[in-house]
Amino acid sequence: MNQERLHLPKGYTYAATYAGIRKKPADDLALIVSEPAAAAAAIFTTNRVKAAPVLVSMQHLAASKGKVRAVMVNAGNANCATRTGEAVASETSAACAALLGAPVEQVLPSSTGVIGMELDGAKITAKLPALVAALSPASLPQVADAILTTDTFRKLETRRVKLSGGTVRIAGITKGAGMIHPNMATTLSFVMTDAGLPAASLKRLLREGADQSYHCMSIDGDTSTNDTLLLMANGASGVKVAKDDEGAFRKALFSLLRDLARMIAHDGEGAKHLITIRIRGARNDGDARRLGRAIANSPLVKTAVAGCDPNWGRILAAAGYSGVEFNPAKVSIRLQKTLVCRNGLLAPFEEPPLIAKLREPEVEIDFQIVGGGTGECTFWTCDFTEDYVKINADYRT
Amino acid sequence: MNQERLHLPKGYTYAATYAGIRKKPADDLALIVSEPAAAAAAIFTTNRVKAAPVLVSMQHLAASKGKVRAVMVNAGNANCATRTGEAVASETSAACAALLGAPVEQVLPSSTGVIGMELDGAKITAKLPALVAALSPASLPQVADAILTTDTFRKLETRRVKLSGGTVRIAGITKGAGMIHPNMATTLSFVMTDAGLPAASLKRLLREGADQSYHCMSIDGDTSTNDTLLLMANGASGVKVAKDDEGAFRKALFSLLRDLARMIAHDGEGAKHLITIRIRGARNDGDARRLGRAIANSPLVKTAVAGCDPNWGRILAAAGYSGVEFNPAKVSIRLQKTLVCRNGLLAPFEEPPLIAKLREPEVEIDFQIVGGGTGECTFWTCDFTEDYVKINADYRT
Repeated sequence: MNQERLHLPKGYTYAATYAGIRKKPADDLALIVSEPAAAAAAIFTTNRVKAAPVLVSMQHLAASKGKVRAVMVNAGNANCATRTGEAVASETSAACAALLGAPVEQVLPSSTGVIGMELDGAKITAKLPALVAALSPASLPQVADAILTTDTFRKLETRRVKLSGGTVRIAGITKGAGMIHPNMATTLSFVMTDAGLPAASLKRLLREGADQSYHCMSIDGDTSTNDTLLLMANGASGVKVAKDDEGAFRKALFSLLRDLARMIAHDGEGAKHLITIRIRGARNDGDARRLGRAIANSPLVKTAVAGCDPNWGRILAAAGYSGVEFNPAKVSIRLQKTLVCRNGLLAPFEEPPLIAKLREPEVEIDFQIVGGGTGECTFWTCDFTEDYVKINADYRT
Repeated sequence: MNQERLHLPKGYTYAATYAGIRKKPADDLALIVSEPAAAAAAIFTTNRVKAAPVLVSMQHLAASKGKVRAVMVNAGNANCATRTGEAVASETSAACAALLGAPVEQVLPSSTGVIGMELDGAKITAKLPALVAALSPASLPQVADAILTTDTFRKLETRRVKLSGGTVRIAGITKGAGMIHPNMATTLSFVMTDAGLPAASLKRLLREGADQSYHCMSIDGDTSTNDTLLLMANGASGVKVAKDDEGAFRKALFSLLRDLARMIAHDGEGAKHLITIRIRGARNDGDARRLGRAIANSPLVKTAVAGCDPNWGRILAAAGYSGVEFNPAKVSIRLQKTLVCRNGLLAPFEEPPLIAKLREPEVEIDFQIVGGGTGECTFWTCDFTEDYVKINADYRT
């Protein structure tokens, strides 16, 4: 990622450092600050077991009526299933708020890493003064790196959008991938824009955008205790998103969210293939997502792709148990654009050239209900390789 | 399995032969005949994509009002997503019925194997006369072998139950395990008893028995297009299950169904561990099953067990996304009877001895919501090993 090409939204500064939370001496504590406070909308994990920072962030957002001055993120410890969890999340937020001169409820804590181990808040508070002193707009890439766990590459995207009132910028960073032990594939995503947007619009845009991006991405179907997707808009560009501008802003935001989500699927542990599943002809977009999710989460489909096996029967069967009603006799399936199933039956194809195409790093599964509805989605996942099992099984032994 | 010890129900005869449906020259066509016709109850796959023999069997059972003279099973071809599928299933059933002098609707076809390839009905009809001629009560083990696909061992259980009117017998055979390509983990199960039971009781017993056995077992969460669980009662013992006897009969039947389901989990492809998940303290048994299923199907839990990793955080998190409401702060988790999580928090334990215990071939996960409801279940699954991925990925390449 070439820093010169980044479109950095105004009013945001960033800093990261190593606080000794993870063993590997790489930055594990990051701060994102907005001046002025940003309007914010968030989507948190639906897991019944929520990490302390998720619970505290939900309380803070409610108390601040969706205003955010700072996000404080640590990697290496999820602060989940911990005795002192909420106290640590609250006290470190308060320390950060004091340094920034902000109300505590405008600081959101966020964590990813090991679960079931106490997080030492002193390690965080000791580093906060230096972090605040180091805040700079140019440190966004450093922050993008600090939030990674087992990810193998940085996930940072920016956009510039010309609106009727001027230009606004959007920046997003994310992490995912890692399913090492005892972690899960926690997804964190922080998206900052200097556009001005009312809270109601932000919420709606985030929900709709997530439906086309993060809700259409899965590594292994497990939902983490810490998942957080946060969208902030501080208006520092001086440009408000007018009614007529919303389409353009929406397009840029959604494309950024999709690129971030796709990068997570691409970086699945041990994955050899990024799998893009296109669903068409479902009754509605919700049905399309359920079909995409069932195919994406099928271990049989994922291992078939790992083995470059054009095994369309597994795809049809996974769709069949998705819970979505459809007529199997209307289904067409294409692998790498080669028709392998028509009307629910084998469409004769030559295996060797298709197997060769399945060796490419990106595999496309096209599932269409011919003559069906207008529901569609694009879903991303990755294959299951022997390395996935190795990475996830061999940590302690 | 020692044949001398089998308790063979009266009135049933069996035969199996090689009909050339699968490549490996091992029996692939089996016949189970009841004289007189048995009352029957069945549970078929909930997959939206149903194989032709499932559709035809559903029609036959409806037409015969639940009377079954014969079950005709082939392995090697699932007769699913096939152009000629229903015609082949109907015609071979008719040929079998003619040989037995039975109405066609009293013959149920059943298939397991490759999907998307036409099944040659002539291979079946050519062998039917010899099969009928060979029918014998002693051939049950041979039939149990003929229905296997990638299973590594025979799955056959029998029971003898003393009731007030005399002794009745129950025999059950099953197959599962195999998730080779392009098959799925089709589960077939055929249970025969010589007790006399009305259709309504059979249906209820099968549903309740399945809830404690087949519905509490999962290899990889994929639901096949061919799954079939059939219970037949022909009354040939002359003993009816009286009101007061139902408890004893039920106990024997459920224990047989549980043993069959457990054997399937034990024989999961590439599996090194049979995993038994005990859930207690759920609001009801349905919630308990949902918790068990979420834990059983989590790739992160399954790979942790493969690696003998006492990773209770993954178990708690999988329960958290099961959709069941519970208080995480009330959860206790035991691995191999060692307490690893109390009140949702780490319960300090010594790792080396627990890791040693996790190397045993059977692993028990005990998940309890302390002070919760009376809902409970025992759920069986197996671990995910590198061999699972190998077996499921490397077929064609």
